[in-house]
Amino acid sequence: MEFFMSEVIEVLERTPRVLEQYLVGLSEDWLQANEGEGTWTPSQVIGHLIDGEKYNWIPRLEIILSETDERRFPVFDRFSHLQQYHEWSIEKKIREFESLREENIGKLKLLITDKSQLEITGVHPEYGEVRARELISTWTVHDLTHIAQITRVLAKRYDQAVGPWKGYLGILKN
Amino acid sequence: MEFFMSEVIEVLERTPRVLEQYLVGLSEDWLQANEGEGTWTPSQVIGHLIDGEKYNWIPRLEIILSETDERRFPVFDRFSHLQQYHEWSIEKKIREFESLREENIGKLKLLITDKSQLEITGVHPEYGEVRARELISTWTVHDLTHIAQITRVLAKRYDQAVGPWKGYLGILKN
Repeated sequence: MEFFMSEVIEVLERTPRVLEQYLVGLSEDWLQANEGEGTWTPSQVIGHLIDGEKYNWIPRLEIILSETDERRFPVFDRFSHLQQYHEWSIEKKIREFESLREENIGKLKLLITDKSQLEITGVHPEYGEVRARELISTWTVHDLTHIAQITRVLAKRYDQAVGPWKGYLGILKN
Repeated sequence: MEFFMSEVIEVLERTPRVLEQYLVGLSEDWLQANEGEGTWTPSQVIGHLIDGEKYNWIPRLEIILSETDERRFPVFDRFSHLQQYHEWSIEKKIREFESLREENIGKLKLLITDKSQLEITGVHPEYGEVRARELISTWTVHDLTHIAQITRVLAKRYDQAVGPWKGYLGILKN
């Protein structure tokens, strides 16, 4: 268990620092790029990560560990952030994400003290029964999927600019 | 031209800092993960980026701007790094990449002083005629494609660990 928890925390604690180096100070043309209507900009992705810290990962873990009979997660609104942080600068968003993440890693360490807890289940509104271990793993991979999304959005701005190299750059094929 | 150059440099100068935050101090289980035989680990990707700084981007740009008749690029060995930096720690690799990148951004600024230079062509061994502008754009997207690759390799370690969330995490589908 210690091994799983420490390698998960390694990634979780890095994400805000990676995003800070990646996005703070980047010009608006990069930060406001997207992949077409209904897709998110790098800046909007950070809003979604903030909401995950507030309403998703730790709140759901707390439900799992609550020792109540019905440990059903409330639905997580994946779009509320589009209004909520609309006016925030990228610095402000990343500072907020960083501070919530730090707090939540602290909570995670306090919540999980024995490996048996990793096997406790809650009920996901769509997927049904899920284990604490799967929730924590997903929190980690969710960071990575959004780092990949930001990277792909940035790359696609230069989809045409790369000329004949396009066929060789895997990121432009997704 | 100033606009193109400044936005390209914004990304190029961030990459080593992003990778430093991302990978330095990460445990070997993450750093030595790959996507199966013949694929690269996050650590090996940094070796490839080092080689790009040494043998690819700026040397090719220098050939384009050389005012000689035949501005043909030598072939770039995409695999030599697998032996060359095999024993290097991740810190050492990233420090080397960071230092070469800084030097190369300095060279880029000295080499391109007029927008007409961006339209000069060289001959790629595979793609034929390519413009300086396309080479510089590709340098940038090449960074992004490898940040995405590292991210995907890390995520895939938890391909099974996420349980029923797998279908919802785009990064696990590539």
